Amino acid sequence: MNTIEPRPTTFLDATGLIPRSEVKLVIATETFQHTGSFKFRAAYQVAMNVPQSHVIAASSGNFGQALAFACRLFGKRCTVVMPNTSAQVKVDAVRSYGAEADLIDTKAITREARVAELAAIDPDIYVSSAFDDPWVISGNSTLGVEIMERYPDVENIVAPVGGGGLTSGLVLAVSGDNRPVNVIGAEPKAGNDAARSFREGRLVTNDFEPDTIADGARTKSLGKRNWEILHSETGLQGIVEVTDDEIREAVRALFLRLNLKVEPTGALAVAAVMANPERFMTGRTVCCVVSGGNVDPAVYAQILLGN
Amino acid sequence: MNTIEPRPTTFLDATGLIPRSEVKLVIATETFQHTGSFKFRAAYQVAMNVPQSHVIAASSGNFGQALAFACRLFGKRCTVVMPNTSAQVKVDAVRSYGAEADLIDTKAITREARVAELAAIDPDIYVSSAFDDPWVISGNSTLGVEIMERYPDVENIVAPVGGGGLTSGLVLAVSGDNRPVNVIGAEPKAGNDAARSFREGRLVTNDFEPDTIADGARTKSLGKRNWEILHSETGLQGIVEVTDDEIREAVRALFLRLNLKVEPTGALAVAAVMANPERFMTGRTVCCVVSGGNVDPAVYAQILLGN
Repeated sequence: MNTIEPRPTTFLDATGLIPRSEVKLVIATETFQHTGSFKFRAAYQVAMNVPQSHVIAASSGNFGQALAFACRLFGKRCTVVMPNTSAQVKVDAVRSYGAEADLIDTKAITREARVAELAAIDPDIYVSSAFDDPWVISGNSTLGVEIMERYPDVENIVAPVGGGGLTSGLVLAVSGDNRPVNVIGAEPKAGNDAARSFREGRLVTNDFEPDTIADGARTKSLGKRNWEILHSETGLQGIVEVTDDEIREAVRALFLRLNLKVEPTGALAVAAVMANPERFMTGRTVCCVVSGGNVDPAVYAQILLGN
Repeated sequence: MNTIEPRPTTFLDATGLIPRSEVKLVIATETFQHTGSFKFRAAYQVAMNVPQSHVIAASSGNFGQALAFACRLFGKRCTVVMPNTSAQVKVDAVRSYGAEADLIDTKAITREARVAELAAIDPDIYVSSAFDDPWVISGNSTLGVEIMERYPDVENIVAPVGGGGLTSGLVLAVSGDNRPVNVIGAEPKAGNDAARSFREGRLVTNDFEPDTIADGARTKSLGKRNWEILHSETGLQGIVEVTDDEIREAVRALFLRLNLKVEPTGALAVAAVMANPERFMTGRTVCCVVSGGNVDPAVYAQILLGN
């Protein structure tokens, strides 16, 4: 019998992160969530709810680890398709939870094709996506509910956008409430397909995986389900594009001023507010979601040293 | 009217920090406390309770910052005596809270002598110590109360020992409860005056300020009040001596496994348990206090990189 559940998020007062500003800033950090990111909320819902005994997904990052751990909790088999160029530490993490890391040569086969190939072999398999999956979106919405409960006067919730799994969960949570709360996305400028999709009013896809330090947002496009939710009238109320230098600056500021270790993707929302404080100066509370903390020590050390 | 109070501590489940062990480990981290360390609990009590309008203390570290901030909250003047070799960032932090940083040449005058000199000038001054002060000990005891409330089955509370301010506060909190809870100190081996004091049954003093990476524990000896409390029958139930390499290893483990940024002194208790898990394998809860998070980015980067 599994007794582990997603942990409540950790709220931190971020007053002072933006000097001499009227922005009331709080942080909801998922760095202390099981497996170190909000993805466990999503993976937990998948593993708990799908009837199949085997779950498969393509992920080289936090979702893979989260799914591996969640499936172990519910006694399900788990396969994570990863590029054979993935950092060994990430492969090891997936395997440490008892899941199978299926390493592929992405020049020979796409992740999607490999997932389909494996799914064809096993009739009792559930193919999950890190963002374009109803259980994933539902799991992520729990974070939105926690934020709304804790901060009755919250006006803006800012969160990273990659495939749109987190922001669409937040939008669902906000839609279930009568208060007018804006969900705003923070996206790397180097892979601004979501911002372009909103400008063009249609789902735009990057030609290549974007080259940004925010590795959790290196998605080619929003998911179809996510786009539907985010593009609706009650959906995303804006996207702030953030440069990689602004991300590094936010990682350093969180280290120096809040003693908070975050991964570059996790700093996107804070970077968006730090770079555009005037946008949030309404006197009501802004909640930035720090989505995760898993970052290679060498990468983190380089950011701290200003390289 | 001041509305800021010490923040409740942040509890983190540290299961998995010690692989394949029976130790039930939780962490009470004060890294998210105001000014980044537990010292704000102490400084707050001092600033709130002493009748004098001017508070002075010698501190080159967390207590100075905490006292400066606390005095500002209560509209009191604050002077922090610091060596003129202190890192500029620490001097700036004290000044940013409106306190005076009194920089001295420690080859020409001791900190204690300079504090006495300044105290003689101002009749309305309160001379505080970072550890040997009743308000400081009382303020630190609030952390013990929080731990006892949160974990009814806690058996061991492990915390850093420098001057003994934190551990004597914890001992007071535990003494006020009927449960048999042990407070155990974690001290740098390079400055093991507290451990030697217990072995010899008398207050032993280091000849020099100890050379350890745990800069918050570079004290010459326990305070007199602290020794009285810690040496009593209901006092400290043991001291674990920790090498600087074990401290670095704990800082890295907290980064990698818990996404927690800590300063070297803050990692002492975790290092003590990681290096001696067999001592804590009773099946009941061990709570390690992470005392603070303020560390120079370059120092932290070097620790991460294994230097």
